[in-house]
Amino acid sequence: MSKGINITIIGVGLIGGSLALDLRYKYKVNKIYGADKNPDHLIRAKQLGLIDESVSLQKAIELSDLLILAVPVNVSIKLLPGILDKLDKQVIMDVGSTKANLIRSIKNHPNKGRFVATHPMAGTEFSGPEAAIVNLYKDKNVIFCDIENTDNDAHELVKDIYESIEMNILYMESNAHDIHAAYVSHISHISSFALSLTVLDKEKDQKRILNMASGGFESTVRLAKSAASMWTPIFMLNQENVLDVMDNYIEKLKEFREAISKKDEQKIVSLIEESNKIRKVLDKKDEPELINV
Amino acid sequence: MSKGINITIIGVGLIGGSLALDLRYKYKVNKIYGADKNPDHLIRAKQLGLIDESVSLQKAIELSDLLILAVPVNVSIKLLPGILDKLDKQVIMDVGSTKANLIRSIKNHPNKGRFVATHPMAGTEFSGPEAAIVNLYKDKNVIFCDIENTDNDAHELVKDIYESIEMNILYMESNAHDIHAAYVSHISHISSFALSLTVLDKEKDQKRILNMASGGFESTVRLAKSAASMWTPIFMLNQENVLDVMDNYIEKLKEFREAISKKDEQKIVSLIEESNKIRKVLDKKDEPELINV
Repeated sequence: MSKGINITIIGVGLIGGSLALDLRYKYKVNKIYGADKNPDHLIRAKQLGLIDESVSLQKAIELSDLLILAVPVNVSIKLLPGILDKLDKQVIMDVGSTKANLIRSIKNHPNKGRFVATHPMAGTEFSGPEAAIVNLYKDKNVIFCDIENTDNDAHELVKDIYESIEMNILYMESNAHDIHAAYVSHISHISSFALSLTVLDKEKDQKRILNMASGGFESTVRLAKSAASMWTPIFMLNQENVLDVMDNYIEKLKEFREAISKKDEQKIVSLIEESNKIRKVLDKKDEPELINV
Repeated sequence: MSKGINITIIGVGLIGGSLALDLRYKYKVNKIYGADKNPDHLIRAKQLGLIDESVSLQKAIELSDLLILAVPVNVSIKLLPGILDKLDKQVIMDVGSTKANLIRSIKNHPNKGRFVATHPMAGTEFSGPEAAIVNLYKDKNVIFCDIENTDNDAHELVKDIYESIEMNILYMESNAHDIHAAYVSHISHISSFALSLTVLDKEKDQKRILNMASGGFESTVRLAKSAASMWTPIFMLNQENVLDVMDNYIEKLKEFREAISKKDEQKIVSLIEESNKIRKVLDKKDEPELINV
């Protein structure tokens, strides 16, 4: 291992490409391969220096010490069992935003110990290899799920990987992860998508929106630029949790609506002041509580 | 006027304080006075160099060439008629987020020509004199409403003021302004407040939110830090428009909910792709279309 390890990024988009960028400089890497069903993405990824070479999935398995699944979550579910069939000592990890279904799909697989289920909590609203950026992951949290299913050496390798790019490692049970992800990530995207649709629907003359849009609007609507190919499978696979959160969210909006409709000043004030408590949560972000196993 | 004009900021918070900071360096100002019902704010505003002196409202009217109403919109409605009663050649402008009610409240006032109704589209989620920042307004849009009610000299002065702090000036009818503001600003705040309430409600253990919260969540929930004293009157005064937008927003969320609940992949994709069109609007922001009178 003096030369470093060989890594294949499966899916050379924002998430996989940004990982490649960081690992090349921060980890002991020999070669970074890329596999992607989109040949244009592979060409761009090589031009951008994200990967050294593009390979087929079969070749990737032969050449790599570590395979990183950075495709939409439904594609990971399709690919993972077939890859595990062919693994020997190699390690495979994913970086997807839902976990329970993926882990369930390999529950009885004899090689399931080679898989490490992780969710680095970082991203932008852009996609594709051109969206890759350095230091996307630095100082962010990564959640490892159901680590008791994973072989020790596989766990250690992936821990090393994330520590090298300066992420805080946390551990969670996969179902708990999916519930929490629905609350702090998936609903934010739905609220942005719906906000965008509301405004676009009303403002047929787009220049009007443009003139009036302020920083507040841009901040809440930013996530509405996110790709359908990534988010549709997340909503489908995390359906139950996402629907629960949406119901709560719609409930809160209706509470607001009623208070405004009755001009109930005290109630509006108390809803806003209650919601202001999010400050405490956001302002504490400098000191994350590490739940280590 | 070689010495510059005297200005009183009525309400020395984020909006008024930031204006004071910019005007002191960018406009030909003699003295900046502050009036505020909160004596602590006046003390802090003086310590921070936002104002030269604190004055009573009566004194402010006597001493100033320009009065800037930078208080919550309901307070502006209470104060404006009484101030207009006492004006001679002085000019008074407001900077509030709703316009139709305020303008209606002075519809028959003999001095209404001295008033300039404006809405600088800029702000942050913070409040109070400590929240004041330089260049808050630079390169942002400011909407002038129902300018035909305003005397020419008053219009020219306030235009000068905003041009000095490098804002783009746009003109709109006040009812149209209030509808558009509901769509591109007010609903963003409600969606953030409701998102915060949803997450806080679920995640009694706040550290869990903290661990999982990513940049996307922070961006959509940022506005939930905003002050009830500013936003409650906006929702009350712009009630009708805000309720309309909320109904549309809840409708869009329900469309999403139904598609996810049916696992209707095509429908989810098409909703997301439709919402992605907001990119065009946001990316064009460099070239605002100026609607000059």
